[in-house]
Amino acid sequence: MTRMAGIEPTHFQWRCADGVATIRLNRPDRKNPLTFDSYAELRDTFRALAYAEDVDVVIFASNAGNFSSGGDVHDIIGPLTEMDMKDLLAFTRMTGDLVKAMIHCGKPVIAAVDGVCAGAGAIVAMASDLRLGTPEAKTAFLFTRVGLAGCDMGACAMLPRIIGQGRAAELLYTGRSMSAEEGLNWGFFNALHPADKLEEEALALAAKIAAGPNFAHMMTKTQLNQEWSMGLDQAIEAEAQAQAICMQTEDFRRAYRAFAAKEKPVFQGD
Amino acid sequence: MTRMAGIEPTHFQWRCADGVATIRLNRPDRKNPLTFDSYAELRDTFRALAYAEDVDVVIFASNAGNFSSGGDVHDIIGPLTEMDMKDLLAFTRMTGDLVKAMIHCGKPVIAAVDGVCAGAGAIVAMASDLRLGTPEAKTAFLFTRVGLAGCDMGACAMLPRIIGQGRAAELLYTGRSMSAEEGLNWGFFNALHPADKLEEEALALAAKIAAGPNFAHMMTKTQLNQEWSMGLDQAIEAEAQAQAICMQTEDFRRAYRAFAAKEKPVFQGD
Amino acid sequence: MTRMAGIEPTHFQWRCADGVATIRLNRPDRKNPLTFDSYAELRDTFRALAYAEDVDVVIFASNAGNFSSGGDVHDIIGPLTEMDMKDLLAFTRMTGDLVKAMIHCGKPVIAAVDGVCAGAGAIVAMASDLRLGTPEAKTAFLFTRVGLAGCDMGACAMLPRIIGQGRAAELLYTGRSMSAEEGLNWGFFNALHPADKLEEEALALAAKIAAGPNFAHMMTKTQLNQEWSMGLDQAIEAEAQAQAICMQTEDFRRAYRAFAAKEKPVFQGD
Repeated sequence: MTRMAGIEPTHFQWRCADGVATIRLNRPDRKNPLTFDSYAELRDTFRALAYAEDVDVVIFASNAGNFSSGGDVHDIIGPLTEMDMKDLLAFTRMTGDLVKAMIHCGKPVIAAVDGVCAGAGAIVAMASDLRLGTPEAKTAFLFTRVGLAGCDMGACAMLPRIIGQGRAAELLYTGRSMSAEEGLNWGFFNALHPADKLEEEALALAAKIAAGPNFAHMMTKTQLNQEWSMGLDQAIEAEAQAQAICMQTEDFRRAYRAFAAKEKPVFQGD
Repeated sequence: MTRMAGIEPTHFQWRCADGVATIRLNRPDRKNPLTFDSYAELRDTFRALAYAEDVDVVIFASNAGNFSSGGDVHDIIGPLTEMDMKDLLAFTRMTGDLVKAMIHCGKPVIAAVDGVCAGAGAIVAMASDLRLGTPEAKTAFLFTRVGLAGCDMGACAMLPRIIGQGRAAELLYTGRSMSAEEGLNWGFFNALHPADKLEEEALALAAKIAAGPNFAHMMTKTQLNQEWSMGLDQAIEAEAQAQAICMQTEDFRRAYRAFAAKEKPVFQGD
Repeated sequence: MTRMAGIEPTHFQWRCADGVATIRLNRPDRKNPLTFDSYAELRDTFRALAYAEDVDVVIFASNAGNFSSGGDVHDIIGPLTEMDMKDLLAFTRMTGDLVKAMIHCGKPVIAAVDGVCAGAGAIVAMASDLRLGTPEAKTAFLFTRVGLAGCDMGACAMLPRIIGQGRAAELLYTGRSMSAEEGLNWGFFNALHPADKLEEEALALAAKIAAGPNFAHMMTKTQLNQEWSMGLDQAIEAEAQAQAICMQTEDFRRAYRAFAAKEKPVFQGD
């Protein structure tokens, strides 16, 4: 296990306190695009998070009113139009690896989405476990607008499971923006908050989750992703094993002792 | 085939009339917790139901204003904190076996949920085919509150398919209650009814389904669970086979003859 | 590649202009039932569409106020009640083959649903990528009413992914009509329009999609169906490959050049 609270990333902002790390893209003048460099550093950071002992929950936050405008047109799209297949596949795999790293990082990820949330930015929000938005959040899987397919970084697999197959198909074929209200009604957002309260609410939710049994949260995250394409009987057996593991943690015993003592349990994550 | 209408279970109430069996946990003073004994007897009963010829639909009902408070803290949680892995896995598999038995019992199961519906109680509701609630229904997958993971008895596989991946993640990470209104809007509940009408409505729905082609209902239930992780093409072929089987039942011919005679068909389940 | 705009089907209406083909069943006096002949010709037409170079989007439209009443009672149900298993399976496979052909045709399909949308008609709507309805649309998976199971042509696999497992189970067990408003709130319909505007709106949506990068749309459709039962990691790799392919299309470069020139891209589908 390693410690990550004090890392100093080059291509995005990082803040970590009380087990909650906050990531923020830092080109607010261009609505926080992703670049080759920030993709790679985010991927490596989420990969490292799987082993971090001092981070329990990650917030992927907005910056100056926008979440992310996605892959930068000048820094990414332009070069891609001139690459050969070998390099193109290396790029699409790197972007997919960011999603895989988020899925496998073992910590719940909360996206706090204000303003523009587009393209690969929308994917990052989709690949998070929970999503809070503002009334101004505009989420667009706009790949079709740049001549590409909606099947980007797992969108054809994940978006239908979040908002339903028919709604996902519309967003992916048309590239239109999903309004914040649609996002709430369709289950994309867990809640909407005013922009000036968004981060406070995200931190409160993160703190609440971080105060829980974090080893067990890791197992919940693992199984939510692991059972994606299991048969029902197989998923039930997988959970019997996963939960039996959790029943050997101290946190389980802490909860029982607290209950018996009529106290509130203080979980330690082991 | 066997007859089950007259069974006399020890650890839960059982009533059966006109092909509709009603199950009810019977510790209303403690909001109807599950115990080692009731888990096992429920599992065995649902397993036996697969062969019962006199039960067509099962209602899992509430008792004195509550559905179930889940695994009993004293009878279950306490002992679990002292078990070794072998016994823990035996327990989690037994609970999973109840869900498997419900899935494979071949009869539609309707949960009629009033008041507290928590932990393993929420799982029983989730593992039912249909769910009716009252405005007072409070459904909580509160495993995280006792130091455990949300992956319990199939929850990480089933809940996302019922209410969507993002909403399921929130309920499983936080353990918070889903209100009855949320449950209705999110598709967890098929309908809400006032508490004093809940059982009447559940019986009416059960009677309506039981009056249908019960062999065909069994195939519908089989396929709804069987196709969980099939490819689309494979699911379509599986349904071609399943429906061809149903086309050789008398009920299919009864329906056609009734239509030709401008009468209402009377299905017999064969 | 072939051209299909000018085909003259025998058992349904066909109109094709500007890359948008409109299909319409043509027995409005009987609410547009499907027959053995129209099933087979629709299947063959959708299979051929996979190779058509002059059709980009398909609309499955209503006729005289109704979408389709499903398998005709006289032409289909009657004969089925007298068939042996070999012929029954040949029939259910043919109906399943229509759904498979729609899934694999490579063009987005928009169902424009007014009035009655029942049985196999509801399946055709469900198997479309997008669905527009009118306030009068009544969608019923009424197989149970004719003594059959809800597992018809993929319904137990597809309907739960569109509207959720619990709602799908209710519709399939009871055969009751889903109202247009329910269909909108549950994600079955992407939008509702007044009946006299339905086709105009469907054509506008089709034109919008057809003006996009049609090769990429084909990949989106492929992946939306292909990833149905993949693991998450596998789906992400599949999309890395699929999107890399799209990045070698001219349409991707056209979009970039248009962006650089501050123009609107004109996609060509290659």
